[in-house]
Amino acid sequence: MSTGPLAIAQEVARLMWADDRASQALGMQLLEVRPGYARISMTVRRDMTNGHGMCHGGFMFLLADSTFAFACNSHNQKAVAASAEIHFLAPAHEGDVLTAEGQEQHLAGRSGVYDTRVTDQNGKLVALFRGKSATIKGQFIEASATGHSQSNPHHGDGP
Amino acid sequence: MSTGPLAIAQEVARLMWADDRASQALGMQLLEVRPGYARISMTVRRDMTNGHGMCHGGFMFLLADSTFAFACNSHNQKAVAASAEIHFLAPAHEGDVLTAEGQEQHLAGRSGVYDTRVTDQNGKLVALFRGKSATIKGQFIEASATGHSQSNPHHGDGP
Amino acid sequence: MSTGPLAIAQEVARLMWADDRASQALGMQLLEVRPGYARISMTVRRDMTNGHGMCHGGFMFLLADSTFAFACNSHNQKAVAASAEIHFLAPAHEGDVLTAEGQEQHLAGRSGVYDTRVTDQNGKLVALFRGKSATIKGQFIEASATGHSQSNPHHGDGP
Amino acid sequence: MSTGPLAIAQEVARLMWADDRASQALGMQLLEVRPGYARISMTVRRDMTNGHGMCHGGFMFLLADSTFAFACNSHNQKAVAASAEIHFLAPAHEGDVLTAEGQEQHLAGRSGVYDTRVTDQNGKLVALFRGKSATIKGQFIEASATGHSQSNPHHGDGP
Repeated sequence: MSTGPLAIAQEVARLMWADDRASQALGMQLLEVRPGYARISMTVRRDMTNGHGMCHGGFMFLLADSTFAFACNSHNQKAVAASAEIHFLAPAHEGDVLTAEGQEQHLAGRSGVYDTRVTDQNGKLVALFRGKSATIKGQFIEASATGHSQSNPHHGDGP
Repeated sequence: MSTGPLAIAQEVARLMWADDRASQALGMQLLEVRPGYARISMTVRRDMTNGHGMCHGGFMFLLADSTFAFACNSHNQKAVAASAEIHFLAPAHEGDVLTAEGQEQHLAGRSGVYDTRVTDQNGKLVALFRGKSATIKGQFIEASATGHSQSNPHHGDGP
Repeated sequence: MSTGPLAIAQEVARLMWADDRASQALGMQLLEVRPGYARISMTVRRDMTNGHGMCHGGFMFLLADSTFAFACNSHNQKAVAASAEIHFLAPAHEGDVLTAEGQEQHLAGRSGVYDTRVTDQNGKLVALFRGKSATIKGQFIEASATGHSQSNPHHGDGP
Repeated sequence: MSTGPLAIAQEVARLMWADDRASQALGMQLLEVRPGYARISMTVRRDMTNGHGMCHGGFMFLLADSTFAFACNSHNQKAVAASAEIHFLAPAHEGDVLTAEGQEQHLAGRSGVYDTRVTDQNGKLVALFRGKSATIKGQFIEASATGHSQSNPHHGDGP
């Protein structure tokens, strides 16, 4: 079994996805995962629209947040969202295909910062998201399975 | 027909709710609306849980965001979310009943700031949310129906 | 020596203030400190104004951030800012006296969330700030001096 | 006189800097300005340190915020900060030379989003900042002076 960082990121994503009922129920498509990076798409369904006839901003957030989750867990150290900010830049409507691309900006100690851009099928930027992660105990793949006996390098004493 | 601010807020909420497929599909319960205020509850379903066995933070965001939407539209001037920040403070699990309470903090010109607190059925604070609104054109109830010939007092020259 | 939470908060503030060259140099006045709470004022000086003839938003941030720092350190466990968000709501000008009031919203494990409101001398709200704190090692007053042999209750396994 | 976007951005910066007492008083150095972009450095002085012996986070914010201001005004349409978020990633100390680099991420209607990265003299990332701008009335250079009779393309009806 390949155990480089890319293979680990992809295996972690496979394991996360299998348990992620929310992302599955929302019809998300996991397009790409690399260490510190993820890309996911989602089609805006009628039940994601709000009273103004537009995609509820919360579903853009969900897409960005899932992308952030796959990116920040890609190192095989379990992590959760501590906080997030989103700027809504343009509306989306039923049938639009939104794609979120999440990229690690910083990782030190137990915390990371990830930026996610959400665009529509025309490449228009519809939202900018920034999330802060915090590691929790546990890994997706046991160290023995990866062939690494490493202690987790991201499990420091930082905030 | 009563046309005081409370009656208007409640009628706006009734009209918004009827069109809000997203909030309906998520099983939200609209508990209370007043001018600048809303309170909504939602039970965490299995399809809202993520790979860590916890409620996906995005659904807490959705609940808080819907509450914000009902609060910031309560003055009968249509408004949308421009940005939002959320701090995730404690996990929630399947079956938990979350309640979000949104309160206007500031409203001037076309912008408002709203704080939403999300608690679980034990009163535990699980998330803090702050949203910024921007008004758009249109009202839910026509001025003639409210008996007011006012120009919209919130449509100023602010950012 | 009194060692209740209020006395500890005030002694911590006295020790912090003595070392806080930045807040002193900016002419801040520490008006009140209680556990989880602080209130500080600052007069807008000419060297705090920017090219639009208004108080540089960064100085409103500094005032809010200092208030947050005094509030989040008030429990005698050293803490630093991990992140912060600010909404600028109204301009301030040279000579205006700004007052920031910071209040703890949540504290668990190593993290806290604090809200700070900045108002001018007329009570007008000029900025809303929310900061997240993270504890670091060390206390201001040694446990022996407080008569408490406690381990720090805020040094959990969060954030 | 050259009136391309770069020349305009640089002339706007020159005019802004002349009036920006705050940035001058803090010893900032304006290193580069282009349309939608600015880079500024600042040395951490003793009067910028706080009670923990570290650069007060508020001064990192000020540096990032000034950089954001030069970037968002670079199109010759006056703009102010509406909100901002900052993540503090590493401490800075007296004598450190911090450099902030601000880049426009989105601009539509009256609003823009700008990301600023703050690094120290070793290239270490110490803070990530994101600011939202809102245009106000007025330009730095009159249209006649630029040889353009354009109406401002960024003065739309957006939030």
